Amino acid sequence: MQDIPKTMSAAVLTGHGGYERLELHHDWPVPTPQAGEVLIKVAACGVNNTDINTRIGWYDDSVEGDSSSKAADGLDSVSDDSVAGWGNTGIHFPRIQGADPCGRVIALGDGVLQDWLGSRVITDNWLRDWNEPMNLNKTGYYGSERDGGFAQYTTMPILNLGQINAPDWTDEELATLSCSYNTAEGMLERSGVSEKDTVLITGASGGVGSALIQLAKRRGAKIIALTSASKADQVAALGPDALIRRGQDNWSDVIRSVNGTDKVSVTADVVGGPVFADLMSVLARGGRYVTSGAIGGKKVEVDISHLYLFDWSLIGSTINEPYVFRNLLNYIENNEIKPLLAQTYPLEKIHEAQAAFLEKKHVGKLVITLPE
Amino acid sequence: MQDIPKTMSAAVLTGHGGYERLELHHDWPVPTPQAGEVLIKVAACGVNNTDINTRIGWYDDSVEGDSSSKAADGLDSVSDDSVAGWGNTGIHFPRIQGADPCGRVIALGDGVLQDWLGSRVITDNWLRDWNEPMNLNKTGYYGSERDGGFAQYTTMPILNLGQINAPDWTDEELATLSCSYNTAEGMLERSGVSEKDTVLITGASGGVGSALIQLAKRRGAKIIALTSASKADQVAALGPDALIRRGQDNWSDVIRSVNGTDKVSVTADVVGGPVFADLMSVLARGGRYVTSGAIGGKKVEVDISHLYLFDWSLIGSTINEPYVFRNLLNYIENNEIKPLLAQTYPLEKIHEAQAAFLEKKHVGKLVITLPE
Repeated sequence: MQDIPKTMSAAVLTGHGGYERLELHHDWPVPTPQAGEVLIKVAACGVNNTDINTRIGWYDDSVEGDSSSKAADGLDSVSDDSVAGWGNTGIHFPRIQGADPCGRVIALGDGVLQDWLGSRVITDNWLRDWNEPMNLNKTGYYGSERDGGFAQYTTMPILNLGQINAPDWTDEELATLSCSYNTAEGMLERSGVSEKDTVLITGASGGVGSALIQLAKRRGAKIIALTSASKADQVAALGPDALIRRGQDNWSDVIRSVNGTDKVSVTADVVGGPVFADLMSVLARGGRYVTSGAIGGKKVEVDISHLYLFDWSLIGSTINEPYVFRNLLNYIENNEIKPLLAQTYPLEKIHEAQAAFLEKKHVGKLVITLPE
Repeated sequence: MQDIPKTMSAAVLTGHGGYERLELHHDWPVPTPQAGEVLIKVAACGVNNTDINTRIGWYDDSVEGDSSSKAADGLDSVSDDSVAGWGNTGIHFPRIQGADPCGRVIALGDGVLQDWLGSRVITDNWLRDWNEPMNLNKTGYYGSERDGGFAQYTTMPILNLGQINAPDWTDEELATLSCSYNTAEGMLERSGVSEKDTVLITGASGGVGSALIQLAKRRGAKIIALTSASKADQVAALGPDALIRRGQDNWSDVIRSVNGTDKVSVTADVVGGPVFADLMSVLARGGRYVTSGAIGGKKVEVDISHLYLFDWSLIGSTINEPYVFRNLLNYIENNEIKPLLAQTYPLEKIHEAQAAFLEKKHVGKLVITLPE
């Protein structure tokens, strides 16, 4: 067994606020795995919206509008004891964030079989009561209600880990997956996407958006990707059937070129805000709108007469059934999806990585690498 | 075979507007059943919101707000060629409304077996392309896209008819069912209500609301009925587990008394408008909001961050799978539901019946009886 140091480097969030609350420490205590848990030496950990949303306290109900513009300075309305996490309570500080680690198991808590030692793992980020895994009132999120992967070492229950056999994938590539692909696959699962559907995907250059393209394609659906003109070529390379550039107004023509009608059967949205009304205007009768994010704004207007007369379903998708993560492991091992790694940053450049994330000039995922 | 007269009494809608557009005629031509259809001598036909919504053109997108206040005079913004029906086009006038007839088959179109003659029938009101019964773009509604039951005679395809063997039910009682109970059962089916659920039902004294109480009870769910104080006693007699009176503010206490939590798993709403925000405030994580009406107002604000973080589904429910109506026939014949007939009006008092309907002092259904 490898020597376990007492301290480690970690990015530590000390409260809700700007970058100044996200501190780099090199003498942070290495955690100890509890019964049923393992200690993981983290190689790489992906950057996600939730890191920034949690830091600035965007999940608190006092916050309106898009999150990007407030990410550098934080929000006056949010105090450190706001209810601004994924569980029913607030975040406990200090907190190590980071939902997407890839690493190797180097120590075992009580009750864990020796076979786990040395396993290469990624995480199912939903912290659950494993006696009631779908009791939504007993869930939390890794890196929010529990310390995550922006540190050299982290612990997780083995029920939340996937042992992954993917020799073609680097650690950085595997660190692009868990949060975005679980979210995306959960959205497609909950909205029942199949080869019969045409799916309109917003934020198509982002982590969840690009995952949605790959995973909806895997299901045989027709795909229309909504993205900015500047990233259209890169998004086109992901293989959607058609693109709509932000600001373009002939959406119906684009849809018609794909499925012969002027409507889509599914909209998979992570943006919300002003684009919501446009999305509703092209949703077919019986259509499903599924969302897992609202970086463009939380509050939207819904016409209930359309909702019922058109037999629409508006589906929120956050907490997945455990099988969604297990399926994802198979997709990776069967080469049904491929990594979209845009850039890596060492841990000490995590502020720079978040700033780049918010500028949104990249396509795919940014990943933090941890020092050896 | 009975003699078929050439003309009949009928309430004829001549265009969108006030009561003056709903004209009584005594020399209206009796329709001829086409192939696959039958001629029905109507005994009674229930009054529904859709009669009034269609008359005033409330389904047109130019119309906001609740429908009741505009029902007497009609709406300036709605012309006779507005898209204000259930299909993708406008209503063709003159039109005989009435979605809920109970009657007897007295003549057969081509291809219909003699067995149908004399059958007592009620209707599945969804006009379908029976080669593609769930193609939502090919549906219409009986009494909207086709002449309905506010007349002595009407025609329907036999695929839309249920032959009913319910000797304990009068014709007037059977005429309370189709529109409201199909709508209510469709809502419960689409939101998957079972004995695990607590269902909050709005408009509980109305046709759909009172049907929802009976049908959700039949499924073993716990039921909380929202109604006005003046009708609380009558609604309580329908057997909900608890009542919330409109204006009452301790909703959480009431819910706790029923299921030990402060949230419900399902909200079945036909009201919309201002009450929507209150309904969302008591919807549990993973909860389903299902709607088939918005008489209180169409436009509501939805917080997408709640929709996704709480894993809610907002489900519009209008067009049902054909099996919903077939199940309903069984519920009637098995005495699993009972009629809620508030009052009957002869055809010539149809204006009076609609005015009483809009006053909403009744519990259950108002029914028009047709002259012999």
